[in-house]
Amino acid sequence: MALIIQKYGGTSVGDLERIENVAKRVIRSVEQGNDLVVVVSAMSGETNRLIGLAEAISAKPDPRELDVLVSTGEQVTIALLCMTLKKLGQDARSYTGAQVRFLTDNAYNKARIKQIDDLHIRDDLAKGRVVVVAGFQGVDEAGNITTLGRGGSDTSAVALAAALKADECQIYTDVDGVYTTDPRVVPSATRLATVTYEEMLELASLGAKVLQIRSVEFASKYKVPLRVLSSFEDGPGTLITTEDKSMEQALISGIAFNRDEAQITVSGVPDQPGAAYKVIGPIGEANIEVDMIVQNTATDGTTTDFTFTVHRNDYDKAMDITQATAKELGARDVKGDTKIVKVSLVGVGMRSHAGIASSMFEALAKEGINIRMISTSEIKISVVIDEKYLELSVRALHEKFELAESA
Amino acid sequence: MALIIQKYGGTSVGDLERIENVAKRVIRSVEQGNDLVVVVSAMSGETNRLIGLAEAISAKPDPRELDVLVSTGEQVTIALLCMTLKKLGQDARSYTGAQVRFLTDNAYNKARIKQIDDLHIRDDLAKGRVVVVAGFQGVDEAGNITTLGRGGSDTSAVALAAALKADECQIYTDVDGVYTTDPRVVPSATRLATVTYEEMLELASLGAKVLQIRSVEFASKYKVPLRVLSSFEDGPGTLITTEDKSMEQALISGIAFNRDEAQITVSGVPDQPGAAYKVIGPIGEANIEVDMIVQNTATDGTTTDFTFTVHRNDYDKAMDITQATAKELGARDVKGDTKIVKVSLVGVGMRSHAGIASSMFEALAKEGINIRMISTSEIKISVVIDEKYLELSVRALHEKFELAESA
Repeated sequence: MALIIQKYGGTSVGDLERIENVAKRVIRSVEQGNDLVVVVSAMSGETNRLIGLAEAISAKPDPRELDVLVSTGEQVTIALLCMTLKKLGQDARSYTGAQVRFLTDNAYNKARIKQIDDLHIRDDLAKGRVVVVAGFQGVDEAGNITTLGRGGSDTSAVALAAALKADECQIYTDVDGVYTTDPRVVPSATRLATVTYEEMLELASLGAKVLQIRSVEFASKYKVPLRVLSSFEDGPGTLITTEDKSMEQALISGIAFNRDEAQITVSGVPDQPGAAYKVIGPIGEANIEVDMIVQNTATDGTTTDFTFTVHRNDYDKAMDITQATAKELGARDVKGDTKIVKVSLVGVGMRSHAGIASSMFEALAKEGINIRMISTSEIKISVVIDEKYLELSVRALHEKFELAESA
Repeated sequence: MALIIQKYGGTSVGDLERIENVAKRVIRSVEQGNDLVVVVSAMSGETNRLIGLAEAISAKPDPRELDVLVSTGEQVTIALLCMTLKKLGQDARSYTGAQVRFLTDNAYNKARIKQIDDLHIRDDLAKGRVVVVAGFQGVDEAGNITTLGRGGSDTSAVALAAALKADECQIYTDVDGVYTTDPRVVPSATRLATVTYEEMLELASLGAKVLQIRSVEFASKYKVPLRVLSSFEDGPGTLITTEDKSMEQALISGIAFNRDEAQITVSGVPDQPGAAYKVIGPIGEANIEVDMIVQNTATDGTTTDFTFTVHRNDYDKAMDITQATAKELGARDVKGDTKIVKVSLVGVGMRSHAGIASSMFEALAKEGINIRMISTSEIKISVVIDEKYLELSVRALHEKFELAESA
């Protein structure tokens, strides 16, 4: 008998028919002999409807009251799912975040989980009940309702799995797993049977939006086996877990890409201690997130060049700030480009294999694709190229690393 | 400085514009130097929408989950009202029933309040905050969400007023007070400045649907001064309070009527101990509420006649049951009529005045109205007459007891 946490997102519980499908899926798992705890999101559209009401009152609605408001979304879903389970003959019991209790800090709208009580849940499971928990929400020490921020239901599920020491945390979504790359770009992209937490983190943060990054971090920290599955069709999905030394590890797990970035280059910055801070600092202070940062050794010995990328929505603001900074620092020039794309190879296997980078660069060179920036980590190589080469580069790399047959 | 509880129903908070009007009314009262605790219902239509979802799942949705579901309605309103108050510069804080905490028994869908914690509320009031509480809901000892049943928000407000020893509990609704009778029937009907709890109980239960009966009982028990006012226009409303000996008490406060009843008569029932129970018992067992019950002394010494009234919706079912009972008891006959109406005179003044009943009967006789049933209590006289005489009888009585000038 295994203890399974299942999490269903807003699309999976979007209407009563879908909720009934979820209930049937839950019951199937119970019939296979499992104990089930189910975490659900608000019905799709509901959170946006509630936020719309709040924003019609004020552009900056009170954060505490916003959490009181939006947390009703999941509360509706837990009740409807339990009613459906009971109608189908399966005993079930719902819990809001406050009832579980999902203790968080007091950071309204983006609270962090501190502790989870499992008393009620264990008691219900022992009585043969399915436990249904509202995702995304918690309660602080003083009893105020908090939310974990959008998409936080994945994190709720993983945190519950960790607290209950569940055998597996299953995240049901509208895709049937994690792919080697976007099948819309490369039709031969294949579903990965397994992937490591580290790879998933790189794939997720690079644009393969299957799972919330925070939930993967959490799963990795507590070694919770995480499985991504489709709530609309059957299949094994993709298991995200620790690296298994006994498995033959694929060299490369997948290719991620991100079309949302823009590039800014400051050249001729006097090369002195603190130069990087002076360039990047003001961007961070303006609450703009910087992704890649590249600095080349000063070739003339006195000045250096910085290039960094930001989200395209922040491009104009970041350019203004950088131009002011450049003037202050006496830099030579500021240039920017929004027609770029970042393409990344991800794979824990590359740690132990030399030559991945050169194979990557070779494949791109063969297609005549010029590389503008390179940034590497232990399990990832990212390049920034002209936007127009996106599809060409991803297909070339997918073929070069034989990903169509790797899964 | 007075402590005021204000309660706003679903129509008063039906959209964001109305919520802003409520916020402004609350702020006006704060500016007059009062401490304010505001109890709100779900936005009009919301509770029905949620119940509709539940009933689409099952004709008999799980009661515990139904409370989890519908309690979200008020939770949305408290958040929206607090956001609006804060936007208008008034500090405010919302509480769900569980957060207050409104401790109830475990009777889902119709829970009874056992105790109210006032710790949070007193603390917030001391800090200059308006406290906004979700009506209609509570929490049981085990932390399960409960609701007080429909319309229970009035009861929440009165219970809070009792717990906090508030100076007044103001119920804002879509009428501007309690009238001597329905102004649609008698245009000269006047608003009562004051009315006693007992009178209000009779008036409410007889069809003047301004206040929930339970809330009036509660107010009476804890001597909470209750005021009914319009949330759409200004005015003093009607104050419901204990009988004031020093006041010159009006003979009659008002005339109530009820068009929703139907009458069933069983005649020729063998007159023996337990006959009443045998006739009425099966009706109660079928969960049909019986209003008036009249039994006449057996004139032939061996049989007796029973007449009782039920809601018209229950008439067919009650007839079937009664016919079966009559057969069993060997009664002579069962007759029924749905075209009846009950008209009642209500007034604490009638306790000390003889002759009210005869004045009433005289007024009806003068109009040629035949009385079918009579039932009396200390502060009420009810008659059942043909439905077609409703307006005529109410106008005749309103004139007879000079109610147009009494308020």
